[in-house]
Amino acid sequence: MGGEPAKWVSMVTARTPTNIAVIKYWGKRDETLILPINDSISVTLDPNHLCTTTTVSVSPSFDQDRMWLNGKEISLQGGRFQSCLREIRARAQDVEDEKKGIKIKKEDWQNLHLHIASYNNFPTAAGLASSAAGLACLVFSLAKLMNLKEDNSQLSAIARQGSGSACRSLYGGFVKWIMGKEDNGSDSLAVQLADEKHWDELVIIIAVVSARQKETSSTSGMRDTVETSALIQHRAKEVVPKRIIQMEDAIQKRDFPSFARLACTDSNQFHAVCLDTYPPIFYMNDTSHRQDNQLCREMESCRRNTSDNVQVAYTFDAGPNAVMIARNRKTAALLLQRLLYNFPPQSDTDLDSYIIGDKSILQDAGINDMKDVEGLAPPPEIKDNILIQKSKGDVSYFICTRPGGGPVVLADETQALLNPLTGLPK
Amino acid sequence: MGGEPAKWVSMVTARTPTNIAVIKYWGKRDETLILPINDSISVTLDPNHLCTTTTVSVSPSFDQDRMWLNGKEISLQGGRFQSCLREIRARAQDVEDEKKGIKIKKEDWQNLHLHIASYNNFPTAAGLASSAAGLACLVFSLAKLMNLKEDNSQLSAIARQGSGSACRSLYGGFVKWIMGKEDNGSDSLAVQLADEKHWDELVIIIAVVSARQKETSSTSGMRDTVETSALIQHRAKEVVPKRIIQMEDAIQKRDFPSFARLACTDSNQFHAVCLDTYPPIFYMNDTSHRQDNQLCREMESCRRNTSDNVQVAYTFDAGPNAVMIARNRKTAALLLQRLLYNFPPQSDTDLDSYIIGDKSILQDAGINDMKDVEGLAPPPEIKDNILIQKSKGDVSYFICTRPGGGPVVLADETQALLNPLTGLPK
Repeated sequence: MGGEPAKWVSMVTARTPTNIAVIKYWGKRDETLILPINDSISVTLDPNHLCTTTTVSVSPSFDQDRMWLNGKEISLQGGRFQSCLREIRARAQDVEDEKKGIKIKKEDWQNLHLHIASYNNFPTAAGLASSAAGLACLVFSLAKLMNLKEDNSQLSAIARQGSGSACRSLYGGFVKWIMGKEDNGSDSLAVQLADEKHWDELVIIIAVVSARQKETSSTSGMRDTVETSALIQHRAKEVVPKRIIQMEDAIQKRDFPSFARLACTDSNQFHAVCLDTYPPIFYMNDTSHRQDNQLCREMESCRRNTSDNVQVAYTFDAGPNAVMIARNRKTAALLLQRLLYNFPPQSDTDLDSYIIGDKSILQDAGINDMKDVEGLAPPPEIKDNILIQKSKGDVSYFICTRPGGGPVVLADETQALLNPLTGLPK
Repeated sequence: MGGEPAKWVSMVTARTPTNIAVIKYWGKRDETLILPINDSISVTLDPNHLCTTTTVSVSPSFDQDRMWLNGKEISLQGGRFQSCLREIRARAQDVEDEKKGIKIKKEDWQNLHLHIASYNNFPTAAGLASSAAGLACLVFSLAKLMNLKEDNSQLSAIARQGSGSACRSLYGGFVKWIMGKEDNGSDSLAVQLADEKHWDELVIIIAVVSARQKETSSTSGMRDTVETSALIQHRAKEVVPKRIIQMEDAIQKRDFPSFARLACTDSNQFHAVCLDTYPPIFYMNDTSHRQDNQLCREMESCRRNTSDNVQVAYTFDAGPNAVMIARNRKTAALLLQRLLYNFPPQSDTDLDSYIIGDKSILQDAGINDMKDVEGLAPPPEIKDNILIQKSKGDVSYFICTRPGGGPVVLADETQALLNPLTGLPK
């Protein structure tokens, strides 16, 4: 050990995906431990398009735990952060880095302070599961920093205590959060049903309807539902268990029509129990309903005509954004054409900022500039139904993405959010 | 009998109220007989403001059954009209009018043809229960024409076969539709819980959000719900029976806070099961949700502060119109001020056509002209919450009314819709 042992800063940077539930989590049986009243299933979204990046650091020179979110310092005093930090510190191991002259014994972690910087590449609290990616990334990066022996499933049970759906962001692909039975929550954790390569032709398009923060937080919303809805317990005990089995089967078999039908009906039921809450909770607005209704009727007419012809699924989380899942790239390109026809950008918006993420779908759709958007032919059903109105400006932007991988450590130090010498935001 | 017996026309004109359910009817166990899956409770609205007027006539000179609705001839071939006509003809009695030289034996009714003219003083099929008032009026007026011995409750079981909720329009005040147990529907009928004088301080304000015909008819909507919703049976079997008992008790005791809470939660649950239907059904739009949410939160904050201080209940039927029930005239005047502040008429609308029905509430609110509307002070919560936006033109008009009486025969022949000599529309 050198002459200035107090000066070292140890750092880990990780990137964690967000996820979108296709069988919804809504309602807790334990508010503190965040134990749900039913299992849920999600698709992990490609972190190349939507992710949280977090740098965690430790140094004997830090005099308190501090955190910065999207560049702004925030309090770590919240019970949920504290639960995660306590659980991780309790499992911390010895860490040694001879090169840097770092040696931390497991008992030292109780007295060492942390600096944490986190950045979402998408709007916070607009129903895009920012807290899921954020808490998963916090737990995952701290686990690496502190050399935890736990696997991702065990880490998911810690992340769960920070934000319920965070536990599902510890894996890529298709993930089940098992509600568990134990009072202490030890068996309420995430497992991977299949990785992202198992069903890699799916394309996900998110219509960001409003980047404003949602009015009702998920936490208070689901508490109100559990306290006042006369339907939520029936959903949790009778409806969801059957749907979980069916959804696992649909994913295993890559049975898109079943997957789509389950995802849509479960999304609708989640919003139904929100409406059955007193006072009622509305996460969707007229724009969401218009999309929802259009997509759903289209799906249903496909289903009635030929039983396996469904091309698009949709799901809405606790916000007005529509998440659409297309069967493959070809249908995604057609869907994008329809979406751009029905929800064109405002005249002062450029296409490059209106369609973000995987822009190659745009090329598949033959759309290179705004002239191509203006020249789009109306979708076939418009001929029969002139009522459908073009809704300019109703959608802020679209994100094109796909099922993606789980958390990764970013070894490249230039990607760190904290200065490696000071441990302060860059 | 005179020399020209074929020339007489016998006529009855009646007026029947519409009704608004406060515990909702949604879902049938028998489509043909229109037997519901749960009891429902409604308030009859004052027919001075919302009603159907129907003239029925019979003459040996008529060569077929004919009907005119709002001045336009419509087909009577529909199964529901035919069910009602068949049931009433089967119960017809001898009729004799010496003055006019009319003598009809009960067996003659099978061969005599009818002319029927009906007029709603409010928009048809916009979620204001026009079919309820219409079918109730048809059955009631025919029963008088054919001298039926059945009481209104027995007539309600006939009206039910025309339009389910029509059975509740056979009584004034507060009415329960008992679902019944018999397969033939004989015990599925309406009973009066209390007449309109029992709780006469209530004031009802209806915001007509859109006079367009609703997109999904109630008939196909409730069929889809029963076929696809995973929550509707739980609602019908477990939730509604308890609410019926509580609502009867609230009406008996004139317990407004309980009445309001039950009405609002049941309205929300009805829209929740519509959303849980596949494809989902949306009867409410953003304007309805804005009203709903505002009113509901206000009610809830009243409830939390002082347990019996709730002043307004609301309920939404199968359409976007809000039906608000104020505790008394004073709160109705305050409510109307708030509504006019938040939903002012468009500049080219005159106040007289924007507030219809019982205009005396407008005077209570101190509003005589558009200048008074423009001069309204913002409601108290606006100070804390500047997000609430004024929504000019979102509401087409408001109807002010109250609980009202049941069907009546209009003896004054000038009110008849058919010419007493020809039996054709005036």
